[in-house]
Amino acid sequence: MREHLIAAPLPTIRRIPRYLNVLEDFAAEQISFVSATDIANKLGLKPIQVRKDMAFTGIVGKPKVGYKTDELIETIKSFLGWDSATDAFLIGAGALGTALLGYRGFAERGLQIVAAFDIDPKKIGTRIHGKEVFPISKMAELAKRMQVHIGVLTVPAESASQCAHALMDAGITGIWNFSPAELDVPESMTVQREDLSAGLAVLSVRMSEKKQGIV
Amino acid sequence: MREHLIAAPLPTIRRIPRYLNVLEDFAAEQISFVSATDIANKLGLKPIQVRKDMAFTGIVGKPKVGYKTDELIETIKSFLGWDSATDAFLIGAGALGTALLGYRGFAERGLQIVAAFDIDPKKIGTRIHGKEVFPISKMAELAKRMQVHIGVLTVPAESASQCAHALMDAGITGIWNFSPAELDVPESMTVQREDLSAGLAVLSVRMSEKKQGIV
Repeated sequence: MREHLIAAPLPTIRRIPRYLNVLEDFAAEQISFVSATDIANKLGLKPIQVRKDMAFTGIVGKPKVGYKTDELIETIKSFLGWDSATDAFLIGAGALGTALLGYRGFAERGLQIVAAFDIDPKKIGTRIHGKEVFPISKMAELAKRMQVHIGVLTVPAESASQCAHALMDAGITGIWNFSPAELDVPESMTVQREDLSAGLAVLSVRMSEKKQGIV
Repeated sequence: MREHLIAAPLPTIRRIPRYLNVLEDFAAEQISFVSATDIANKLGLKPIQVRKDMAFTGIVGKPKVGYKTDELIETIKSFLGWDSATDAFLIGAGALGTALLGYRGFAERGLQIVAAFDIDPKKIGTRIHGKEVFPISKMAELAKRMQVHIGVLTVPAESASQCAHALMDAGITGIWNFSPAELDVPESMTVQREDLSAGLAVLSVRMSEKKQGIV
């Protein structure tokens, strides 16, 4: 449970899954107690950063002893909502959508894609990695019946806005947006943009800066 | 060409591809001049932010006229190195790797995946979305011959470190790391981590904060 009633900063949230990876490695090595310094060293971070981030999950380390590995893993999973499976729909069963349907990493992180939606009649009714593909018109009914609140959006930019509205009408409140489009949705919706071009831009610019001796 | 000899901040670099999307929309609508305010409004940003970010690309807007749309597009593409195609290798032809091999978005952004590598004998010699799959042992020879300096890493966590070293030995200097592993490589390498769990964490935490009335 969250004890802090202030929103966690974005960089903190983004670092927390990395802590979880490191802690799971420690647990696999039967290391029962870990310090913020142990975690920080594995990730090239400062221990104070780790301690500050951990405070947002509600856990407190003991001086000289550190954190109990198992307890910290559970606390982090609960903070991230990864302690129980959350069902999600995927919209857009193209190349990227197909890959995400087959990606085992999500289930490990509590996200279970339970159905896919597409407009292509050739895809509708088929199964991709075991998940049935439905027409978009079925979304509202299925979302209500299956109690789904998260949509993974993997459609081209030109269909993104229309699909986002279909998701909203279906009662979906969180969109994981893999499309390059900017979505114009009400504040009540949570949208997380997964922008591959941003990552590619960072890689290109940093390589070019290194070549020019700027960094 | 970069006129600034200081490294662009990370959030600036990540925003620039979004400016490019918006500018390409303006160009498609035959809008020849755009202001920082026009761009900012489309993205829900402040105009001063857009102006500051643009300065890193080396372009200067004219007061009351703004930027010439086509010129700004060219300047941004040149800043990002997206004005010419850069060849890349993909390592790990699993579900995610296969999707990225078929993803048209990269070519539009100047990244051309020219070959894939895998350890699975059943995949080696086949073609995925037209790209041949080679054994990892061929990487150094092909990187040299094809002048490839970027590797897209889509292997499971347990193989990531070994593959990163194979990339390094092949003369690759930039790694786009889609594996959940932390890579321990020398400073001379540029590594861009594409962390899907970080995005999922942000979506989960923000939805839970909204539910609790924190944000």
